[in-house]
Amino acid sequence: MHRKELSTPALTIDLDILEDNLNRMAHYCKEHGLGLRPHTKTHKTPELARMQVDRGAVGLTVAKVGEAEVMADAGLDDILVAYPVWGVEKLRRLAKLARGRNILLSLDNEATACELSRAMAAQDATIGVLVEFDSGLGRCGLEPGIACVELATKVTKLEGLRFRGLMTYFGSIWGTEDERRAEAAHVAGRVGHAIRGFEDARIPIEIVSGGSTPAALLTESIPGITEIRPGTYVYNDLNTFYQGACNLGECAARIVTTVVSTAVAGRAIVDAGSKTFSSDLLGSGPKSGYGYIVEAPDAKLFNLSEEHGSVDISNSASRLNVGEVVTVIPNHVCATVNMHDDAFLVRNDQVVGQWRVAGRGKIR
Amino acid sequence: MHRKELSTPALTIDLDILEDNLNRMAHYCKEHGLGLRPHTKTHKTPELARMQVDRGAVGLTVAKVGEAEVMADAGLDDILVAYPVWGVEKLRRLAKLARGRNILLSLDNEATACELSRAMAAQDATIGVLVEFDSGLGRCGLEPGIACVELATKVTKLEGLRFRGLMTYFGSIWGTEDERRAEAAHVAGRVGHAIRGFEDARIPIEIVSGGSTPAALLTESIPGITEIRPGTYVYNDLNTFYQGACNLGECAARIVTTVVSTAVAGRAIVDAGSKTFSSDLLGSGPKSGYGYIVEAPDAKLFNLSEEHGSVDISNSASRLNVGEVVTVIPNHVCATVNMHDDAFLVRNDQVVGQWRVAGRGKIR
Repeated sequence: MHRKELSTPALTIDLDILEDNLNRMAHYCKEHGLGLRPHTKTHKTPELARMQVDRGAVGLTVAKVGEAEVMADAGLDDILVAYPVWGVEKLRRLAKLARGRNILLSLDNEATACELSRAMAAQDATIGVLVEFDSGLGRCGLEPGIACVELATKVTKLEGLRFRGLMTYFGSIWGTEDERRAEAAHVAGRVGHAIRGFEDARIPIEIVSGGSTPAALLTESIPGITEIRPGTYVYNDLNTFYQGACNLGECAARIVTTVVSTAVAGRAIVDAGSKTFSSDLLGSGPKSGYGYIVEAPDAKLFNLSEEHGSVDISNSASRLNVGEVVTVIPNHVCATVNMHDDAFLVRNDQVVGQWRVAGRGKIR
Repeated sequence: MHRKELSTPALTIDLDILEDNLNRMAHYCKEHGLGLRPHTKTHKTPELARMQVDRGAVGLTVAKVGEAEVMADAGLDDILVAYPVWGVEKLRRLAKLARGRNILLSLDNEATACELSRAMAAQDATIGVLVEFDSGLGRCGLEPGIACVELATKVTKLEGLRFRGLMTYFGSIWGTEDERRAEAAHVAGRVGHAIRGFEDARIPIEIVSGGSTPAALLTESIPGITEIRPGTYVYNDLNTFYQGACNLGECAARIVTTVVSTAVAGRAIVDAGSKTFSSDLLGSGPKSGYGYIVEAPDAKLFNLSEEHGSVDISNSASRLNVGEVVTVIPNHVCATVNMHDDAFLVRNDQVVGQWRVAGRGKIR
């Protein structure tokens, strides 16, 4: 079946592009002696996580305990929950996972460490801990320096916890390549500061985990990082493209959608809205709209209602008639994938398989 | 269990508020002789649809065939699919639904009518058809007037279709009450024009369906409307509040979320981001951020990452410490509910039940 024969709207993944993306990142990490611990939030799919591990990933990253459970249920191990989880019920599940598996958690405060320790001790489990520091984004994470060392020292004293190193998210590395390079230099200073704190205190750190997709291929300019956690690179999206961190041919995910109305002059309405794409606008270029219509790049997907995508065709050479099927590269693929129960796999536009997005909706 | 003891993040529905909202709209419609055909896109929950029908709703509205199936599976009937569905697979399912049930579909073009007729004829089914006209939003729908009459005339000649009337979406009625009243007058002109076309052609119209939540209580100023399709009114949200169409005490849905990090000065991070709230900003007041924190109204939820909500607490009297649980009224509740598999029901803050959001993710 051609992908345009799918019942729409549908999420499709081009396997050739995906495999190239996986290989490129695996190669970069191998070449630079970096561990690759991909963030699975983008795909939420154990089958794809397995492909990453088969290509040499040292482990996986998730944000939620429920996502870790999905990966563990599929037989995957060595999972970093890159999130300061709080709450008795979730920590109980996390401790259960940590029995007999290699699980890590990042945190940035003593209260969370104490709660985590209590949960682990109750089930006689052990979990690895990374202390999170802020490399410039200002979201989670301690200031590099003494605060990190103090927290790590406390962690080493708590039952069921094993201090294994540091974590930061390179979310501040964003924008054009020049902007990203400049910010990477700033981040490198903060990473160096964080590491020196531990050297001065003579506390060994096994892991220094960083990363994000726009920063991934700049990691060589940030000394001390031992592993990275890019997520988006598997599929890429317009956000990544507009930062110059991929080209359109490296975008593996598309929404297949049908034109359902052209009753209003200058407009075509497609059967995919914010409940299919998500309503994430493009960080780096709001002018580009809500997605790139491959078959009509001069038509602008300028508005999304919940189930309607409004396309401005007044300046487009394409005639988008009712019933015509188009494919759209989304702005933010992580948010888009999370709207779908299923992803359809294609090669040369032919549907060759289907994945369940098993981690979708695992918000706890 | 108190709602703050739920594992977070979680969607909670206050049943007392919900029931008041349902009763208020049912009363308005009864008082003004209007049919109420609520749009279930907001809640996607058959149990709540049943509450609406029990309070006198003449039927239900959905956007997708999959949503209609969920409602029909729960024994609900008289369902308007307010969407110009295109595609063989979906129309086959729709025809199956229409056998033995009262199903309606809205459409605005002949091609869709022909496809629909073919699908109905193949299964010896009959479906009601509403011709959609544009009352001012400029999304779907024909211009009021001759175009509508011509399409209706074609519909009456097609096998398996029964022309039943007109439909429009009052999406242009938006903003402050003054703005909404002014636009309602404009909409009334277009509705009148549409109806007169049929009077002139001596084609009887049984149904003239309009509505939206911000416009619902203004329907009396739009003559000719026989039924309305508000959705959001069941739960309300900040969008509705900032238009003056509800007060905060009439907002029934809240996200329960836990503070997980305060490592960065002036900020608290909660465990709910765009994968819990959706990233829909507030149409009428972007300054208000991504939600209203009931326990700390002076703290601003200024940014959402996928799983992190960033709260500016620099001007807040509240101390949001790690582990503290807060409840947040979302900006756009339809988009928020769609992120959740479950809704937890509360009365007086005590959890008294749970609904599955059975229609979530039914994008086809």
